Amino acid sequence: MAEQNIIYVGKKPAMNYVLAIVTQFNNNVDHITIKARGKAISKAVDIAEITKHKFLKEVKYSRVNLDTEVVQGERGESNVSSIEIILSR
Amino acid sequence: MAEQNIIYVGKKPAMNYVLAIVTQFNNNVDHITIKARGKAISKAVDIAEITKHKFLKEVKYSRVNLDTEVVQGERGESNVSSIEIILSR
Repeated sequence: MAEQNIIYVGKKPAMNYVLAIVTQFNNNVDHITIKARGKAISKAVDIAEITKHKFLKEVKYSRVNLDTEVVQGERGESNVSSIEIILSR
Repeated sequence: MAEQNIIYVGKKPAMNYVLAIVTQFNNNVDHITIKARGKAISKAVDIAEITKHKFLKEVKYSRVNLDTEVVQGERGESNVSSIEIILSR
């Protein structure tokens, strides 16, 4: 599959996302991007590390990008940090 | 200065660390490494992004490393994710 798969990290337990990633890699995907914003960034790193160390030892980080996104909230615009972790094998 | 400067992110407000980084860059340091573990990882990304976008626009990410560290706690060993963000100009 040529399309790049993206996992958005939200409020579910880390292991849910890990299992989604492992499932996608087992379906012959070569690259998966984990995206998170704000406090979910720590969880995104946990998810990537658990995937790499416990499930798919052949997976590497091909890139980690940090950025800032503008989010529309109830009290106007605010800036929030974001992370993009690209896993590949 | 040849030595590589390291900022460990803990419980202080993000802006304290940002100001420490800006001060070091103003003292002719070329590289600063921001290190954080666990939930402080999100704050480390905030610190890096605030430094880059609000204070030192010429600073770049020369590398972002993710890893897992083993921590000794009261209830034995546990794994914690870590991040290392290397800023340079």
